[in-house]
Amino acid sequence: MKRTCFVLVILYTGCLAAPAQTPPPLVSPEVHADRTATFRFRAPNDKEVAVSVEGMAKPLPMQKDDQGVWSVTTEPLAPDYYGYTIIADGVGMFDPSNHVIKPNFLGRSSELHVPGPASLSWEIGAAPHGEIHHHFYKSGVVGDDRDFFVYTPPGYDARAKQTYPVLYLLHGFSDDASAWSAVGRANVILDNLIAQGKAKPMLVVMPLGYGAPEVLKAGFGAFRDRSLTDRNFDKFREALLTEVIPRVEVEYLVIKDRNSRAIAGLSMGGSESLLTGLNTLDKFGWIGAFSSGGITEEFDKEFPAVDSKATEQLHLLWVACGTEDRLIDINRKFRAWLASKNIKHADVETPGMHTWMVWRRNLTEFSSLLFR
Amino acid sequence: MKRTCFVLVILYTGCLAAPAQTPPPLVSPEVHADRTATFRFRAPNDKEVAVSVEGMAKPLPMQKDDQGVWSVTTEPLAPDYYGYTIIADGVGMFDPSNHVIKPNFLGRSSELHVPGPASLSWEIGAAPHGEIHHHFYKSGVVGDDRDFFVYTPPGYDARAKQTYPVLYLLHGFSDDASAWSAVGRANVILDNLIAQGKAKPMLVVMPLGYGAPEVLKAGFGAFRDRSLTDRNFDKFREALLTEVIPRVEVEYLVIKDRNSRAIAGLSMGGSESLLTGLNTLDKFGWIGAFSSGGITEEFDKEFPAVDSKATEQLHLLWVACGTEDRLIDINRKFRAWLASKNIKHADVETPGMHTWMVWRRNLTEFSSLLFR
Repeated sequence: MKRTCFVLVILYTGCLAAPAQTPPPLVSPEVHADRTATFRFRAPNDKEVAVSVEGMAKPLPMQKDDQGVWSVTTEPLAPDYYGYTIIADGVGMFDPSNHVIKPNFLGRSSELHVPGPASLSWEIGAAPHGEIHHHFYKSGVVGDDRDFFVYTPPGYDARAKQTYPVLYLLHGFSDDASAWSAVGRANVILDNLIAQGKAKPMLVVMPLGYGAPEVLKAGFGAFRDRSLTDRNFDKFREALLTEVIPRVEVEYLVIKDRNSRAIAGLSMGGSESLLTGLNTLDKFGWIGAFSSGGITEEFDKEFPAVDSKATEQLHLLWVACGTEDRLIDINRKFRAWLASKNIKHADVETPGMHTWMVWRRNLTEFSSLLFR
Repeated sequence: MKRTCFVLVILYTGCLAAPAQTPPPLVSPEVHADRTATFRFRAPNDKEVAVSVEGMAKPLPMQKDDQGVWSVTTEPLAPDYYGYTIIADGVGMFDPSNHVIKPNFLGRSSELHVPGPASLSWEIGAAPHGEIHHHFYKSGVVGDDRDFFVYTPPGYDARAKQTYPVLYLLHGFSDDASAWSAVGRANVILDNLIAQGKAKPMLVVMPLGYGAPEVLKAGFGAFRDRSLTDRNFDKFREALLTEVIPRVEVEYLVIKDRNSRAIAGLSMGGSESLLTGLNTLDKFGWIGAFSSGGITEEFDKEFPAVDSKATEQLHLLWVACGTEDRLIDINRKFRAWLASKNIKHADVETPGMHTWMVWRRNLTEFSSLLFR
């Protein structure tokens, strides 16, 4: 017994010295010329490691080599940005070899970029760049310290006279306020579309989307608690209408009428766009909902302000969802309800799951239609 | 043999189904009432896990429980923000239970906040908040797409007439351009100091600090390659002087003379502040160097423009280093060289290692002295 303890102590001392023998860094992810990508993860003692890649139905199992490095190479991938999570013995992790992560309150994803041609709206090219403004404030409505981001297009000059329309662009559940710029590349997409004459110069305001930030503590099951969900939606709308929009309209050169105000968002933010936009049509003339989720099927109750006059007021109601998204059903039901009410809208079904690949394309198409 | 293969296949199928049995989420880090903090990391098969905490000389070994969760609780910690890295079987990782990470090209650190009183300059309090502007541009000098950040103080209004002095604030090796705001809390520190009348309202410009971004590929050994290091410093200075400063002075309401222009930075950025500032005294009247590193001891060669007239031109030359920092020696040698040249400067030695805890305090003190 004593002998065993002695050995353990020696081992332990050896371990404390271990950082000196740091293993060589890995390259992960590595994108090859044929657009396949290799993920690598060093974990000599793990029993099972896989990588879950955004847009793939199942994690890809990784194989371990004799150096304790797990790896897997994908099929050729379409040029895009992909979130991915290393799942090491059941725990989702950032890839420690990659400094680019997706900001998110709940998920742990790193990011893979498979570069593509300049024709892809999210690729940084020769277009002049707009600017992103990061604002901080104490919300009286919610009671927390929070932030929002504002994209101003190239050439925007606060000292000039030109005024701009505004798109309020909302993130999804678990995202933070930086998601549409950091992950969605909204600034790059607008830079490119504006340079090509495909979108009108506009401001894009990206607020924090939680009216009840405690929904994050409940995790992805939060939407089962209807009173929490309703408070989250209601307080978000109140903070947007009474705090964010008034401040934007004081601090920026914007056109202050419903014809020049759009609201759109993804997932939870899609529902917020519908709940806020369709219930305050005096404020918004353009509404987009990408892969919306979190509202109930009692649409008459969710949208009490919507009647047949809505069609006259709306320049655009654009309801999109990927056909492989589990939320396609509720989106189809919602569009059927709109049709039953004779509300003119765009039915948009695209390939894809509940992914940023879908939403970057949604933003590209939707923003091109605005303010015309 | 056949039998073994069969068993392996069965196991493998079982493993693919594993994500359904996701383990319960951990709380990590958890700060207790006595200001101790507990780190937790699930890794049932790892042999050795430790956590390396910013400002501690050695990693803290973690202990595994029967659920495969490793944990350790610290001694009581002074209120501050601490970077920390989980070291799992020799690999440095982000903490997968924590969504707050430190942006960095090379290191993988998560962040622990031990909250403190409002008297600490980096705590978000009742002070009005300035704004952070994120700019993107193609650098002709370096040849890459890059970014810089600009803090404008509360009340800054591009449509008004008031002009402001500017602090150019430089990050360290391995940081990105967001480091001084995301990790250094420069915006919060300035908000608080300005509200308390301890700092003059000023703009803070935080550019990307690499003149030769390929230094990052060489890792922490980059500074042994003097030609690479010199190119990195030279091209940084050129990009700052010919690209960033001219653009800031067109786009913002700033006072365009050396008496209202300061330059300061940490580690590599401290050296850049000295190399740029002391060699272009016609541009800068205020210079700060925090824990500088990366320059040689041939100070006469590094600073050819410095002569006894420098003292007349400099409002402030502030050279700081933590006494437990391995760079204290070269900083002492540099200050001795300044003294030998009769260059007036502030010798600042504080407790601390090569850490952001030191640099947040450096910024607090240095920015309070500026433009008076």
